[in-house]
Amino acid sequence: MKKNLLIVGAGGVAHVVAHKCAQNRDAFGDIHIASRSMAKCEAILASVRDKQGDEAVDAIRAHAVDAMDPGAVARLIRETGAHIVINVASSFVNMSVLEACLQTGAAYLDTAIHEDPAKICETPPWYGNYEWKRRERCAEAGVTAILGVGFDPGVVNAYARLAADEHLDTVRSIDIVDINAGKHDRWFSTNFDPEINFREFTGAVYSWQDRAWRSNRMFEVGREWDMPVVGRQKAYLTGHDEVHSLSRNYPDADVRFWMGFGDHYINVFTVLKNLGLLSEQPVRTAEGLEVVPLKVVKAVLPDPASLAPSYEGKTCIGTFVRGTKSGEEKEVLLFNVADHKAAYEEVGSQAISYTAGVPAVAAAMLVASGEWDVRTMVNVEELDPKPFLALLGRIGLPSEMIVNGVARSLVH
Amino acid sequence: MKKNLLIVGAGGVAHVVAHKCAQNRDAFGDIHIASRSMAKCEAILASVRDKQGDEAVDAIRAHAVDAMDPGAVARLIRETGAHIVINVASSFVNMSVLEACLQTGAAYLDTAIHEDPAKICETPPWYGNYEWKRRERCAEAGVTAILGVGFDPGVVNAYARLAADEHLDTVRSIDIVDINAGKHDRWFSTNFDPEINFREFTGAVYSWQDRAWRSNRMFEVGREWDMPVVGRQKAYLTGHDEVHSLSRNYPDADVRFWMGFGDHYINVFTVLKNLGLLSEQPVRTAEGLEVVPLKVVKAVLPDPASLAPSYEGKTCIGTFVRGTKSGEEKEVLLFNVADHKAAYEEVGSQAISYTAGVPAVAAAMLVASGEWDVRTMVNVEELDPKPFLALLGRIGLPSEMIVNGVARSLVH
Repeated sequence: MKKNLLIVGAGGVAHVVAHKCAQNRDAFGDIHIASRSMAKCEAILASVRDKQGDEAVDAIRAHAVDAMDPGAVARLIRETGAHIVINVASSFVNMSVLEACLQTGAAYLDTAIHEDPAKICETPPWYGNYEWKRRERCAEAGVTAILGVGFDPGVVNAYARLAADEHLDTVRSIDIVDINAGKHDRWFSTNFDPEINFREFTGAVYSWQDRAWRSNRMFEVGREWDMPVVGRQKAYLTGHDEVHSLSRNYPDADVRFWMGFGDHYINVFTVLKNLGLLSEQPVRTAEGLEVVPLKVVKAVLPDPASLAPSYEGKTCIGTFVRGTKSGEEKEVLLFNVADHKAAYEEVGSQAISYTAGVPAVAAAMLVASGEWDVRTMVNVEELDPKPFLALLGRIGLPSEMIVNGVARSLVH
Repeated sequence: MKKNLLIVGAGGVAHVVAHKCAQNRDAFGDIHIASRSMAKCEAILASVRDKQGDEAVDAIRAHAVDAMDPGAVARLIRETGAHIVINVASSFVNMSVLEACLQTGAAYLDTAIHEDPAKICETPPWYGNYEWKRRERCAEAGVTAILGVGFDPGVVNAYARLAADEHLDTVRSIDIVDINAGKHDRWFSTNFDPEINFREFTGAVYSWQDRAWRSNRMFEVGREWDMPVVGRQKAYLTGHDEVHSLSRNYPDADVRFWMGFGDHYINVFTVLKNLGLLSEQPVRTAEGLEVVPLKVVKAVLPDPASLAPSYEGKTCIGTFVRGTKSGEEKEVLLFNVADHKAAYEEVGSQAISYTAGVPAVAAAMLVASGEWDVRTMVNVEELDPKPFLALLGRIGLPSEMIVNGVARSLVH
């Protein structure tokens, strides 16, 4: 019997997930999508109909649900008979959706770490604050929970595992580099939910170096990376989910995340941050209205989904893994190059959403097939990377490899 | 019988006005101060007590009033027996306070043009939209209304009149230049109410040139001015109240206002404006809260009054009037230099508030003495500038003059 799937969320990544699930609907039983806003679910279904036709859209049913309410999500899982839940809603609902999976036995997948709306940048390792506290319960209940299975975190974790397993004897460092060399026609925009985007950068930047957590300020540490296709790009040490699991699984390696930023982004971010407009703490206006500045910034910024039609250029996201093989120094770079325009033509999204959504669908397909149905909680580097990367190559995100500066074919 | 005075407002300029009225209390009968917030009035009285002692503060009584309500202001005028009202509250209340003066016969003085919260940068001449529509009623009722009697507008209008009357046969141009060369210890702040400050710069920049209104964008036209004491400074063509009355009274002259801005201010302003955060139109957050972005920006920015303790350096504000005298080209610059630290030591305010507040008190003293009690509505250039500038020199804002590049003594 094929496994039924429930997608929770109806934002930019959910849009891609719905499209990819429809494209690969033979891998699943019934497919459902649910969010607080029925209208947003229906807009996604309209896009699926537009790109893939009636047969594809008929495979998906839309529901309204308050994902902050574990009971409501559990009821929906039971009603839909869902065996697998892909949670691509706001990071604020991760724990309520996971709770619903624990109550019903459904497998749980997400693409970003849980966040508490009231807190920014908690104690490392971040997964220790919420997710890993439920690991025992997952194991006891035999519930598969795959954390952070987007591109980064997600595919980049699989890259680290593959390099460590197949190409190195010892791992000295894991550097994840995320470059978006695309251009859109707006004066300024974040590429995904501004609230989540800015929260990533307003707290301390944690990296794992010399077997210890190191803390820096955002934009304090920058360096140029020479990346395939997109060329030399300045990227900055940034706090990111995967640093917090990879450092647990590869404690002897330095683990760092680098994100590319242009001067324009840095200037806008710096102005907003220094003025206090990125704060998640409410302020009171002269008229007595209590309001969270960050939510107002989100309200005035473009909807990231609206960038897609004008977005051009490529993203390059990869993992540099350095260490030794047979006593020799070795550097392995595994990466993917995605194209904004191609993503838009295929599913109506820009490449940032595309690269985040497709891996979650691949993971769901591997859970459905049993290959990744591990009946416990894992981060992606704890799973066999080969079927995942092979499947990703077939459904839209091919990986490439460069070893010591020389392109090599990636054998799965 | 000495005339009773009512100060409306309890912000930074009202603070200076209250101090200066207390210093010059012999010129008035009873002195009252009223604002929506009794606590803000009392904070001002505490500062007066601190700087000037019990006798000074005993001369002033505090009241709470909603200045948006003409009936409430009229009742307070009657209760206090006020003959003169200095309105230094938000520009949004000008018309309601003027209405109360028309109903009671009290003289009306303000320091900035009326603004409608829902509109930015209305049709020039700005005074034609609200103030001048009440000119006939003032004349009929014999009510003295002196518009815009701060420094700019205000003293700079008197400078233009003095230069035109005493030093020139023809006036070809009037350029008002406002330079603040002071430094404070905050990353960014406006020098007065951020809401009013930013509203000045978000609309079209109007200037009067070649007998017609010309419209530019903010920061589109900039030039360097060589100013006394503060030196060479970049200033930008800016929309400002006095352009709208001086162009009516000197229609053959080009009338322009130039405000000095550093690159940092321009960058912050540009980011906020381009993101839509300076909009006075409400936006709706994802949570459904309706909020005006500009009011949130105001809420996160420093209270301009809080800058005073750390403010150092000088302001220089002046009027360049060019034309001919006996057939020869002639340039007359009249100006004042004020010092942030000196203003703070004297009244606990920075120089921006000081230069705006002191002229209103001088004007009230001239209304009280009868010299400026004109029983109709006027802009400052329609009044005799000599007693005004002489009095200002005695109470803290001395003027200086440079003719064709040579310092000349200013004879009142």
